[in-house]
Amino acid sequence: MSFDVSNFVPTPESIPPAQVSYQQKQLVGLPVNIHPLNPFPFILRAALVYPNKIALAHPDVEYPVFYTYSVWAQRIQNLAYALIQAGIRPGDRVAVIAPNSPLIADAHFGVLAARAILTAINTRLTPQEVAYILDHSGSKLILVDRDCMHLVQGSSIPIIVSHDTGRPNDPYEDFLRAGRKFSAEKGWAGLDVEPDENAGAILCYTSGTTGRPKGVLTTLRGSYLAAVANVVEGQINRDSTYLWIVPMFHAAGWTFPWASVLACATQLTIRTIDYPLIWKHFLHSGVTHYCGAPTVQIGIVNDPAAAPLPNPISAIIAGAAPTAHLIGQLEQKGITPVHVYGLTWTYGPFTRCYDQPFWKDLPLDQRAKLMARQGQSFATAQEVRVVYPPKHDGDQELVDVPKDGRTIGEIITRGNIVMKEYFRDPEATRKAFRGGYFSTGDLAVMHPDGVVAIMDRSKDIIISGGENASSLAIEQELASHPHVLEVSVVARPHHKWGERPMAFVILRPEYTPQWTGKHDSFGEELKKHGRKRLPGFACPEWVEVVEELPKTSTGKIVKTSLRARVAKL
Amino acid sequence: MSFDVSNFVPTPESIPPAQVSYQQKQLVGLPVNIHPLNPFPFILRAALVYPNKIALAHPDVEYPVFYTYSVWAQRIQNLAYALIQAGIRPGDRVAVIAPNSPLIADAHFGVLAARAILTAINTRLTPQEVAYILDHSGSKLILVDRDCMHLVQGSSIPIIVSHDTGRPNDPYEDFLRAGRKFSAEKGWAGLDVEPDENAGAILCYTSGTTGRPKGVLTTLRGSYLAAVANVVEGQINRDSTYLWIVPMFHAAGWTFPWASVLACATQLTIRTIDYPLIWKHFLHSGVTHYCGAPTVQIGIVNDPAAAPLPNPISAIIAGAAPTAHLIGQLEQKGITPVHVYGLTWTYGPFTRCYDQPFWKDLPLDQRAKLMARQGQSFATAQEVRVVYPPKHDGDQELVDVPKDGRTIGEIITRGNIVMKEYFRDPEATRKAFRGGYFSTGDLAVMHPDGVVAIMDRSKDIIISGGENASSLAIEQELASHPHVLEVSVVARPHHKWGERPMAFVILRPEYTPQWTGKHDSFGEELKKHGRKRLPGFACPEWVEVVEELPKTSTGKIVKTSLRARVAKL
Repeated sequence: MSFDVSNFVPTPESIPPAQVSYQQKQLVGLPVNIHPLNPFPFILRAALVYPNKIALAHPDVEYPVFYTYSVWAQRIQNLAYALIQAGIRPGDRVAVIAPNSPLIADAHFGVLAARAILTAINTRLTPQEVAYILDHSGSKLILVDRDCMHLVQGSSIPIIVSHDTGRPNDPYEDFLRAGRKFSAEKGWAGLDVEPDENAGAILCYTSGTTGRPKGVLTTLRGSYLAAVANVVEGQINRDSTYLWIVPMFHAAGWTFPWASVLACATQLTIRTIDYPLIWKHFLHSGVTHYCGAPTVQIGIVNDPAAAPLPNPISAIIAGAAPTAHLIGQLEQKGITPVHVYGLTWTYGPFTRCYDQPFWKDLPLDQRAKLMARQGQSFATAQEVRVVYPPKHDGDQELVDVPKDGRTIGEIITRGNIVMKEYFRDPEATRKAFRGGYFSTGDLAVMHPDGVVAIMDRSKDIIISGGENASSLAIEQELASHPHVLEVSVVARPHHKWGERPMAFVILRPEYTPQWTGKHDSFGEELKKHGRKRLPGFACPEWVEVVEELPKTSTGKIVKTSLRARVAKL
Repeated sequence: MSFDVSNFVPTPESIPPAQVSYQQKQLVGLPVNIHPLNPFPFILRAALVYPNKIALAHPDVEYPVFYTYSVWAQRIQNLAYALIQAGIRPGDRVAVIAPNSPLIADAHFGVLAARAILTAINTRLTPQEVAYILDHSGSKLILVDRDCMHLVQGSSIPIIVSHDTGRPNDPYEDFLRAGRKFSAEKGWAGLDVEPDENAGAILCYTSGTTGRPKGVLTTLRGSYLAAVANVVEGQINRDSTYLWIVPMFHAAGWTFPWASVLACATQLTIRTIDYPLIWKHFLHSGVTHYCGAPTVQIGIVNDPAAAPLPNPISAIIAGAAPTAHLIGQLEQKGITPVHVYGLTWTYGPFTRCYDQPFWKDLPLDQRAKLMARQGQSFATAQEVRVVYPPKHDGDQELVDVPKDGRTIGEIITRGNIVMKEYFRDPEATRKAFRGGYFSTGDLAVMHPDGVVAIMDRSKDIIISGGENASSLAIEQELASHPHVLEVSVVARPHHKWGERPMAFVILRPEYTPQWTGKHDSFGEELKKHGRKRLPGFACPEWVEVVEELPKTSTGKIVKTSLRARVAKL
């Protein structure tokens, strides 16, 4: 790692007292051998063990900051006291709206230290959507980045703005200073400890395709155990540097804010997905781990700044299966792809495609097919099952599909790595927890080796001539065409077959000129390519070459937009 | 790894059914997002993910066995059913008396799978002590290795003997076969799941210096979280091979039976501590991790079979602080020493001496001084404090000593990595849990960097001329003499000073001839060496050269024996 920290001076309030103690207030009434699981105190241990290590680096802004563990811990403590002074009480919700930056990293610890719940809001939403979430969550305070102010304008809830400077006179720094003053140096021992490990931790609103967003509430215990799993699965340690690409507002950044601290690693935040910047850090900042959806990974490996890496990097991939082409490109760059699967409802990843020793001898194409599967339970997750869909409303019976790699059912799971509930929506919670399991809504098969492979989201399945065609499976095959950079497939109504697949394709830059003005010819070629690989009912009937695909903030393709476009054809 | 498994065939009952399912029975009555923490199901996930990987190798016996994860899981299931068939009910105690071997490894999973508590008994005890433990624990069944039969002769409790063959006609194999038959292939789904994560897991009797042994009862939750910590701290993963040197009956093998399985690693058992055999496995079996007290480490590095290692090995050291000389020797051999500290009461290790980046530039002697300290809390442990001893009986007040590296107090801790209770001894439990913390009985200082350093067990302190002399500190200094292999120091009554230190020394083999018949002269030289390094009151008044030191099964020096010897002088 080689950050130039020489020009950075933390604010006076960020400096812990000389005789700092990381001891928490003693919880009374619990047995000696029980301490409630909670991920926030990871910071106390890290600050005790590695006080002078860089915990959080935020270098690519006008005012870069580099917080050591001892300084960051003090700032988190200040935030907790500032929140309490602002009237935040146990169980209250505090909202944060920010790109990846110290503000939102702080919030994942400081809000929990104040025994409150963090409402992490997607920065790509509209002001109306944000207003709905603030109202539904009953958030009592908003921590907002300077660039997200337009989302909360007119709100009657108190707002603390961060200009992302870490310097005096930044309103957020004023807030922290007030917290330090209010604490009267009572320190960590002055903060009450949350006695209930099943209390709420993070509240994330998921924007469904229909209806209002729903609030997914997680617990302290689940956050702790999911973070543990990410350390174990990712083999993160004190020599690791985690680069933030996935937004922290997305499923608590898959619990990596806490996992990185449990491992005493360094976190590096960048405000936007900027491929040359990512490569700068890959090459010069000692990055060892990052997470991202395949579409982001495609951007990374195809960026002109790509160069041989000084050290191996683990790419944790979720959101969709990586293609053979992408896996090959990542490996060629010295990046090890780790394919995981998860949802906001499961604290991010809860399964992993565990590669078997013999895979390394297989040709890339075969290996990629195996690696594209969603895998098996994470270290601290419970079993993953694939069951037949409910026969009628209220059906609680769960029957596993055969382990044949063919029969499609729905992925369900339960246990510590599942959300607590939909906030203030017991009816939706009841529906999501059919038969004592959480229903993911993802359609999958179970392979004979116990590996789950997603076929599609239930709404993305294409019913073509009465057959179920998996849009994902079609995409996987079309993506193997050497001229295809990205592809997305949705159903389009068909007079004879009911539905037929339509493919939207982005060409690789080097092949774009060749097909200019000849998109129809390319479409024919791609359909021919598909016919060699797919059953007839799954072959795309239409191909459209596009310059970009609609995507969410986490890089997932928004199929509802494509379907809306198809509806107008 | 290179075990020759070609000649090994598991018993028919060890082979899982073709359509094996690792799904447990669904727990009803708990929220969807709660699953009780329990380390035994780690085997279910490992068997699902890596069915054909060697989980447990036991090569150095007449009938070597090599169990894959799928086979081992089936054997554990058979054991659970066999125990239930034998009348074992939830919460019952099942005893095991065995050296490191598959029997005791099985028991750490199978007994928990039957919802029973494992009473793990030290094989070095006398039949009378074993009888006391069997009686006090109320164990209903004994699993015993062929070599420990003499310890349970005449017991009225049912006994299952293992001849450690893994072959048909071994009584233990008959027992497993009966379990498989009894299960009627109901499999994992036929076993009830323990709903209470705070239920008992392991019952270990500690032989105090006075009075009867006491039963330290741990919980499923604590075992799970301690195992997680050992995976995180030890960086154990699916490429690891853990060599068993610490007896598994000692504090559940520091939770490594479970930690290794959580990491999907391979475990390798040897029945006795045999240095040439250890080196054989270091050199040829892909060993990556082992645990041991310094005295075992001394034996390892000084064995003639020592040779350059093909891959780095982590040596997890506890029981006493490693000396500079030992650290140097280990590192020279390619073994990385990791100094941890713990007790049976804390599931084995709960602190670690975390090396700081700048240490690597220090001379070995200085680095060793820093590394000899006991360190800071483990990943899942709570805070470690050093407090003044109680002023009077029943004193519940806990006052931390200053962080000055000088003031001696007692180490206390609390939280998930602390025993549940002394079994059937509420009075002793109450005493051990003064002020809501567990009192370790270890005397230590707190350094300014928050690092705990043990000065002594409270009973090992030497009160010389009114000063407290730490026997450990004296030993550390005497061990720096190049002719000293091992040294132990105890108090000996003195007419003028009350007590004075007496040192018992083993000479290095290469220097032994030089001092033959001249032990007194060596004593003078060692005292001179000590006077340069120690305050006057801590200098040994007497030195005795011995050929061996009395040791426990885990390699700890038994100071009570030395004190008994001193009393006769």
